[in-house]
Formats: sequence, C-alpha cells, structure tokens
Amino acid sequence: MTTALPPDEVRRVTCVGAGVIGGGWVAHFLARGYDVTAWDPAPDAPEKLRRLVDAAWPALTRLGLAEGASPERLTVAPALEEACAQAQFVQESAPEKLELKRDLLAQLDAATPKDVVIASSTSGYPMTDMQTQAADPQRLLVGHPFNPPYLIPLVEVVGGRSTAQWAVEWASRFYEVAGKSVITMERELPGFIANRLQEALWREALHMVANGEATVKEIDDSITEGPGLRWAFMGPCLTFALAGGEGGMGHMLDHFGPSLKSPWTRLEAPELDSALREAMVAGCEEAADGRSIAELVAERDQGVIDVLRATGRLPGGDAR
Amino acid sequence: MTTALPPDEVRRVTCVGAGVIGGGWVAHFLARGYDVTAWDPAPDAPEKLRRLVDAAWPALTRLGLAEGASPERLTVAPALEEACAQAQFVQESAPEKLELKRDLLAQLDAATPKDVVIASSTSGYPMTDMQTQAADPQRLLVGHPFNPPYLIPLVEVVGGRSTAQWAVEWASRFYEVAGKSVITMERELPGFIANRLQEALWREALHMVANGEATVKEIDDSITEGPGLRWAFMGPCLTFALAGGEGGMGHMLDHFGPSLKSPWTRLEAPELDSALREAMVAGCEEAADGRSIAELVAERDQGVIDVLRATGRLPGGDAR
Repeated sequence: MTTALPPDEVRRVTCVGAGVIGGGWVAHFLARGYDVTAWDPAPDAPEKLRRLVDAAWPALTRLGLAEGASPERLTVAPALEEACAQAQFVQESAPEKLELKRDLLAQLDAATPKDVVIASSTSGYPMTDMQTQAADPQRLLVGHPFNPPYLIPLVEVVGGRSTAQWAVEWASRFYEVAGKSVITMERELPGFIANRLQEALWREALHMVANGEATVKEIDDSITEGPGLRWAFMGPCLTFALAGGEGGMGHMLDHFGPSLKSPWTRLEAPELDSALREAMVAGCEEAADGRSIAELVAERDQGVIDVLRATGRLPGGDAR
Repeated sequence: MTTALPPDEVRRVTCVGAGVIGGGWVAHFLARGYDVTAWDPAPDAPEKLRRLVDAAWPALTRLGLAEGASPERLTVAPALEEACAQAQFVQESAPEKLELKRDLLAQLDAATPKDVVIASSTSGYPMTDMQTQAADPQRLLVGHPFNPPYLIPLVEVVGGRSTAQWAVEWASRFYEVAGKSVITMERELPGFIANRLQEALWREALHMVANGEATVKEIDDSITEGPGLRWAFMGPCLTFALAGGEGGMGHMLDHFGPSLKSPWTRLEAPELDSALREAMVAGCEEAADGRSIAELVAERDQGVIDVLRATGRLPGGDAR
C-alpha cells in the first residue's frame, strides 16, 4: 500500500533539468499555482530559466492563470538534494542520454521522500531501461510532455517493469489535476505513441531533404497548408475515415488500401488483412463516439474554418 | 507556344469524377464563382454530388463566397465528351487505379480543347506513369488537393516527363487565382510531399494497431492533444527547431540526433551527416525568414492559444 499524498493535495513540485522542456514544465506548474523548485547543474541555468518563464508568462496570462499563480513562487535550488527534500512530485527533464538518465533517476530516488512519484520527460526511452539503478523503482515512471509543456496539453504516462500500478494511476490523476490531457499507456513502447508517429514523419522529411526531394520550407508548408489544419482537432485516423465518404473507414481502406503497396514513403506498411481492417473500422467507430459521418464532416469543416480564422488566414481572423 | 486562356480569365471548370474529392472540388469551384460542369459514370453520382455540395455550402458561406457564386451554377453532364467540350480547365478525380487513370486521361485529352490544362487529383501516382496514352500529354499534370478541397488550401502541382513547363506554370497560377495555396514541385516523387509525410505517420499508426500497441483513439488523441496543435500553423521542421532552445535546429539535431538510431518508429532514419545537418539548419533559417528564435517562440505560443481557443478547448472559445 502507498501513503502517497492525494494528487489534488500537491502544492510543491520539483523540476530537475531546466532546459527547453524542464523550463517549460516550470512555467506550466507556476501558472497552475504550484510552488516550484528547480535544479539544473549548468552555471547559467537560473538565468536562462528566468528568461524562459518571463517569455512564457504573457502567453500563460492570456491562457488564464490559476489563483495565486506567480513567477515569484519559483525557487532555484543550489543542489539536487535540496531540490528534492520537500518535493511532493518530481519531473525530470535532463538531456536525452540513457546512462545520464539512469544515474540521475537513482540520485533523485535517493533524495526524494518515500511514496513521492518521480516522472521522466524522456522523449522515448522505456522506463524499464532507465529505472535499473534506483533503490525504489516502483515510483519511477514516464510522463512525456510536448513542447512547450505549458501550452500543449498532452502527457503520455507509462511505467516500466518495476513501476507500481498505484504510481501510474497517481501520476495520471495528478497531471489531470494540473491541467494536462493524459494518455495512460498499458504497455511500454519506445517513443510511446505521439513521438512514434511524428518521428516517422520527421524521418521521411529528413530523407527527402537529404535526397534533394523537397526543401525544409516545402515540407513545413505542405503540413501547415494541408493535413496539419485538420490534425489540430481531428486525428489522422478519423480524418482519413472521412475520405471514405459515406462508407467511412471501411470504404477508405478498400479504396486506398492498394496505395499501401506504393512507394509513397520509405516506411513499409503492414499487411492490410481482415483483422487490421476490422480493428481500424471498429477503432474509428469508438473514436467517433456515436457521431455519424455527416456529423463528423460538419464538425471537421467548422474546425478547419475556425483554425484558419484563428491563425489569421481568413478575413476576420486575427492578424498575426 | 501556347494559346491558353490566361488563368485569371477562366470562367468554366470541368470536374471529372464526383466522389469525395471530385465533389469537394466541385464545391470549391462553385464557391469561388465558377461555372462547373461535372461528370461521373456512377448512376447515383448526380444525387450524391448535390448532397455533398448542399452539405458543404453552409461552411462555404461562412468562409465567404465569391461574387455571384451559387450551387445553381453546377451542371451535371450526361457524357464525358459533353463535360469537356467547353472546358477551360479540367480536374480529374477518378478512383486511385493506375490503368483507369491512364485510360481516362487519354479520353479527357481527346475530348478537351487544345491548350486547356487537365489536372489529376491522384494521391500519389507520378504523371509520367499516367500520361502514357494521351495524344497531347504536354497539358496533363498533377494538381493534388487535400480533403476537403473546398477548405484545405494546399494543392501540389507537378508535371510528368511529357508535361510542358507552360502548363505547370499555368496551373500553379490558376489554382492561386482560384484561392488555393500552391506548392509547385520541380521533381516528380511518388506521393509528392505532404502525402509522403502523412503516409509515413499513417503506416506507423497501422503497424501500431496491427500489433496492439495503441488504439485508434489513442493515436488520434496523441496528435490532436499534442503535435497536431502546432502543425496547424507551424510545420514539423520549424517546430522541432524550437526544441533546440536558443540554439535552434543546429542544437536540436546535436541533442536529439542520437535518437535517430532509436527504434522510435519502424522507419529507419538517414545518416545525420554534416551535409544533412547543414541543409536542415539552412532550410530552417530560410523558413524562419528573418524571425528570431524568440520571435518564433512567441508566435508559436500565440498560435497554440488561438487554436486551442478556436477549437473550444479554452474558456472563451466556441463550444463545438
């Protein structure tokens, strides 16, 4: 059994590592009204961190601050042990190096009170590979954010082989209380979910640039003027289902399935057998949650218009 | 030399194929004030087309119609020859089957007046492979839209080996006049640009579902709550550059470069050699177009807030 503080009673958060992601977490937790203690070994870290928080604060103010939220509630600790001694939750955002993460998580484990959850911002290392040197690995897990953590809602939560179920549940609930949108994964997977998807796109982009097939600007424009407009509010699966017209995902797969054999990316597709077809159709029905194709089309259309207007690409939109 | 009508004098557009994409083109050209003639061999095509246009029209009205635009300016022709006889531009959106496209484009070529450009909506076939049976292949090219064509701005324009340069330039200009955002590719590539990128993501998603690694809903949520929010207005390259902090793309590649060796997707990455690193850094500088990292961060932050609010995910946003 755990004697962990209930997630909604957390008042003090410790952020270890104060670069782009760690500093972004600091800004997020400050804006949500927490006391935040930060630690980073770089000599210029405190100054850079203050600059990052100051730069983010106008956006956070427009977003709406929690009661009592203030950048003054940030403390920069001189040593890791001091940063962790009073922690009620620890978010680790150190550089993406496996050995470094292993050592650091063992140190954080030793310095942090029992039953306090320690989450790693790792972009893709499974916690099973990172928790090997900690004395109490059951409260170590992944809480993977997106840049900037103070604005992008998603956090992917997943434990390693030695992580306790209570810790996974605690962290998922804590992040929700702290204003995040949580996907709790039942199974470890390198790169988790979103990074596997965006990494596939990113690698194809790198191949295209390396081979002179497209420029960086063409790649970026092809997303922001194209599929990116839909993905802000409707995911790639449901979006593709609407390409099937009134027949939805099933018709789309029947129509575009043969394209999976085409060299339209360097990534080979899985066999589109009846099990995968059925899983995609059923999954889209679950994601549609009772909305008909016609309702989804209307929703997508309004969403694209809203996004175009909000990003200044329609008359009447904000000039940005 | 061409005697083609100047792109801004086009009044009559012919759409061949009236499914989801062809019908979406019909709706777009009607909303931009063109006379549109459609043809589709399916017996129920006229009825489905009217339904699609009727469903899209409220969104198009909110978007802002061109002067004189009306769904009444749609004519459904009983035969391909009649649809093409008076055409000033032809958009082909037949099913994605190579043999069918080859035959159809040859028929369209025979039925359409000389010097009138014929564009294919193909999702990824190179025009070189499709124009083989046409008597006058020089005016055949790809004009690849995104669903729905009446709302998503992007069109990718690219010719085949037998396409004339004048036709590529004419089509790029025509689409711009017709309200689209155009990427004119100098080189054929299966899947063009945006579909190569989204196809990589889509194939990774299919693999994950096929292997029980993630559900359709988790995949969709991971994008809409995560990277998708940024991609509505800032592409994947510039977005990643901001993960490098004040060091931008160069620092990001130095920091996350080793991740390219990690199994974070099934797609293997290219070697991150100095030429690729330099191309990415220079490309991001071009895309940034003089904006500093700090300015891009402020722009991204405001963009995410605008998109969150526009899609009903912040207080004060539209409830949708």
